[in-house]
Amino acid sequence: MKKPTILVVNDDGITAPGIKSLIEVMQEIGNVVVVAPDGPQSGMGHAITIGKPLRFDKVDLYPGVEMYKCSGTPVDCVKLAVNKVFKGKKPDLCVSGINHGLNNSINVIYSGTMSAAVEGAIEKIPSIGFSLDDFAQDADFSHCKKFIKTITLQVLTKGMPESTLLNVNFPKGANLKGIKICRQANAKWAEDFEERTDPYKRPYYWLTGVFENYDKGEDTDVWALDNGFVSVVPVQFDLTAHHAIPVLNSWDFNDMAVKKTSGADGQSLG
Amino acid sequence: MKKPTILVVNDDGITAPGIKSLIEVMQEIGNVVVVAPDGPQSGMGHAITIGKPLRFDKVDLYPGVEMYKCSGTPVDCVKLAVNKVFKGKKPDLCVSGINHGLNNSINVIYSGTMSAAVEGAIEKIPSIGFSLDDFAQDADFSHCKKFIKTITLQVLTKGMPESTLLNVNFPKGANLKGIKICRQANAKWAEDFEERTDPYKRPYYWLTGVFENYDKGEDTDVWALDNGFVSVVPVQFDLTAHHAIPVLNSWDFNDMAVKKTSGADGQSLG
Repeated sequence: MKKPTILVVNDDGITAPGIKSLIEVMQEIGNVVVVAPDGPQSGMGHAITIGKPLRFDKVDLYPGVEMYKCSGTPVDCVKLAVNKVFKGKKPDLCVSGINHGLNNSINVIYSGTMSAAVEGAIEKIPSIGFSLDDFAQDADFSHCKKFIKTITLQVLTKGMPESTLLNVNFPKGANLKGIKICRQANAKWAEDFEERTDPYKRPYYWLTGVFENYDKGEDTDVWALDNGFVSVVPVQFDLTAHHAIPVLNSWDFNDMAVKKTSGADGQSLG
Repeated sequence: MKKPTILVVNDDGITAPGIKSLIEVMQEIGNVVVVAPDGPQSGMGHAITIGKPLRFDKVDLYPGVEMYKCSGTPVDCVKLAVNKVFKGKKPDLCVSGINHGLNNSINVIYSGTMSAAVEGAIEKIPSIGFSLDDFAQDADFSHCKKFIKTITLQVLTKGMPESTLLNVNFPKGANLKGIKICRQANAKWAEDFEERTDPYKRPYYWLTGVFENYDKGEDTDVWALDNGFVSVVPVQFDLTAHHAIPVLNSWDFNDMAVKKTSGADGQSLG
């Protein structure tokens, strides 16, 4: 088999230990190209940079690895990689991470790590995001490596279902029980803002919060991680709530609604 | 009926004409509270501000409207509104926009306007995002108003299906044919980066792109807008690709996979 070409991205920035660990695993599998933010971009979600220009420069951090840093968001990095590095000849795989901190449950939507992988999938590149339950700069990623290699080789062998990517999260610590395929738990952040006063007597606010899980299912990523498993959630970027289409078609829009054409969701009401 | 309390947000910034139009419609329906970015935040997706603090100040722009500006993202605005303005006593509705520019199809994922509405829905507030196919600062929003009022009153009367919000897009111009309930079209941006050279001879890049629609369905938002309809797409924030769970459970993870627990997606393989 020809060695696959693998794009590696992240949101913690190109010098983060997490991306170094991911590069090391990917070097065992294929030819690695890294395009990563020049600094931390955590919590950037699916942001793109449209109001200002981007810087994009080749760097030389690790032997044998083609690397670029970018002033923009994780999603910008994927777009720059596709357009400026691969020039339309797509890589065989896009991996993002390893994130310093979990991206399970609702965190998938705030995460720059996962949004980079989502962008890879939008570009029809098989894509995986990896995250570890440890925010520390010196987090130990060593126990993740064999799982990352196995999951990555399965994706390269089997191919991803259409318009789908993987969200892989690791508990902290070495005693992992195995891999569990999950759904995203129904949970959210109960946010709080810590108010402080600057030296000029003006208030400012730090976003903080507590993660609240409303989901008792044993088929969720939260349950899997709480119980020592590696969670693997298939993720999609069609955000349509298909089940709600018939409901909306039953609403009363004062004769403004047009229902003559039939659709893919069975709402043929003509 | 008690007048509803309505949170109005956007991503074009608190002084944008689009939010002024939306405030005018909402004042006909309820008590309006505005929390909006202090400047443009287009393309910010679901970004939140975690690496730096936020500024958050009361402003007085329009008579009879309680208004706050925030230095952060559209999603930050919703979080600040819930925590600092409503103090946990949620508003009856969250509306976002009117965006200067479409947020149909895949744009839902890049859009600050839609991400603010998604955040409202995560907070269990009935939420709607509105966008017009006109990027101009002096865009004419007048033809959108009667549709916005009708849709908003239906949401307040009927309530939203659980964990669902609405993505409403308007064509430019006054001759609208009506409202059409749609799904998100399968489309993407074919990006390009325009390279320029700064006065110091260093390159920089502007993100540009062409919207490519791969979807011939007449039940999509792209089709509806192309044919003069107001598109209404129900949107969800559970990103799980449920259909892919059985596929992944059939993969070979070198005995690392644990399949003993049954799940909500019928992958009981124990």
